[in-house]
Amino acid sequence: MTSTTLPMLETYPQPINLDRQKLAATIDALNACSQACTACGDACLSEDMVAELTKCIRTNLDCADICATTARVLSRHTGYDANISRALLEACIVACKSCGDECAGHADMHQHCRICAEACRACEQACRDLLATIA
Amino acid sequence: MTSTTLPMLETYPQPINLDRQKLAATIDALNACSQACTACGDACLSEDMVAELTKCIRTNLDCADICATTARVLSRHTGYDANISRALLEACIVACKSCGDECAGHADMHQHCRICAEACRACEQACRDLLATIA
Amino acid sequence: MTSTTLPMLETYPQPINLDRQKLAATIDALNACSQACTACGDACLSEDMVAELTKCIRTNLDCADICATTARVLSRHTGYDANISRALLEACIVACKSCGDECAGHADMHQHCRICAEACRACEQACRDLLATIA
Amino acid sequence: MTSTTLPMLETYPQPINLDRQKLAATIDALNACSQACTACGDACLSEDMVAELTKCIRTNLDCADICATTARVLSRHTGYDANISRALLEACIVACKSCGDECAGHADMHQHCRICAEACRACEQACRDLLATIA
Repeated sequence: MTSTTLPMLETYPQPINLDRQKLAATIDALNACSQACTACGDACLSEDMVAELTKCIRTNLDCADICATTARVLSRHTGYDANISRALLEACIVACKSCGDECAGHADMHQHCRICAEACRACEQACRDLLATIA
Repeated sequence: MTSTTLPMLETYPQPINLDRQKLAATIDALNACSQACTACGDACLSEDMVAELTKCIRTNLDCADICATTARVLSRHTGYDANISRALLEACIVACKSCGDECAGHADMHQHCRICAEACRACEQACRDLLATIA
Repeated sequence: MTSTTLPMLETYPQPINLDRQKLAATIDALNACSQACTACGDACLSEDMVAELTKCIRTNLDCADICATTARVLSRHTGYDANISRALLEACIVACKSCGDECAGHADMHQHCRICAEACRACEQACRDLLATIA
Repeated sequence: MTSTTLPMLETYPQPINLDRQKLAATIDALNACSQACTACGDACLSEDMVAELTKCIRTNLDCADICATTARVLSRHTGYDANISRALLEACIVACKSCGDECAGHADMHQHCRICAEACRACEQACRDLLATIA
């Protein structure tokens, strides 16, 4: 399965204020992170030790919602407002950092937390890279 | 129809780090703003002069998504992380300000933009009030 | 706080294929149910007996997502497609029934489940009432 | 970028009632379709002939929301309820069919509609394949 995020950006009929390659990579990382967090929260919920994973589940849910919304906002270019993109990327970086730290804390015990922590780190980095290009 | 947001907060089984009345008022304002923006975006899309409303539609879509996500994050208290709430409230204030300004700009011509601008202003203020209480 | 769902519907610039009062009541019930389910899932996550509430949390998350999406779809009237509204209302009724049953099962022990069950029942009924009017 | 949807499913700590390969393929198709529809709606909004694309934009918005919610519901396995999955897949098939038809109608004129139509067709087929395996 190949992502159509970049091909779609290339067909956008007006100029885009950001680098399309970097933008597509960030949107893909956001969608992948949102998906990993949704799956990790559910996997945690089915662990025998669920009572010790409640903070992880909560952070997964927040990170999934924030990444999904950030992907949508970054996918819109009509009437572009750099202030919204910037503020939302900053919030998303906080959420990815928090969820990545939480999942990394029990990555040794739960493979789903290990994979999710990697998705959060990759997404955090992609958001930082894109944010650095927004004037 | 009465909101059950505050009654639900009152049944939460652990302490909550924020004032429950103010929190419930903010969540209700966020949900109301998200709903108004979704409806305003669609109403704009059905106006004869849709070509002049594309920035308004886009800002409506962003504001609807960001308010909905902020309402969800603020509705979770398990494993509370003040950094996420703070950063997301800041992004939400930017989105509400932007959408409120945009809608206010043609409130004279479109009643849906007038009502939506009011919802955005009220939501922006509620977010600012809550943010001020987060240490 | 008064809902602006009906005032917004009244400013929609084209005909709407459904009764605006009934439609507004359903959208409000969907948003209220989505909010209650998000809060109930988080409250369950903070109960000491969380291990016995995992199915409730999961159903809460599903019902919150499905109600939120149904509210959005029903808030759009441009290019109306009755088939989408009908199929989504049917899915939403299943989700509200399932979550209402689950929450009702421990409404005696958890006040948040009691309130959430009522929101699910009210939403299920509103969706059934609206669905009955879609040809 | 490789999807972690299947690796995440393989780390889920309990049995899953569906074929994990087929499930992962469907979730990936849903997320790809949701992303394509969000991008297509925004691209249509920036076309000079936006007034002729309002139905397409609306169907894009519906399909994006419904696919995103379906991906989330299918990503949860705790307390599995086949009735919810089945009803939601049925609604999603209707939305993908509708959006695929709409986009296909002007695929010759707009490359973003052509790519989006393909994503809708692929997603519709994946949902049908998965639905056929749910008892």
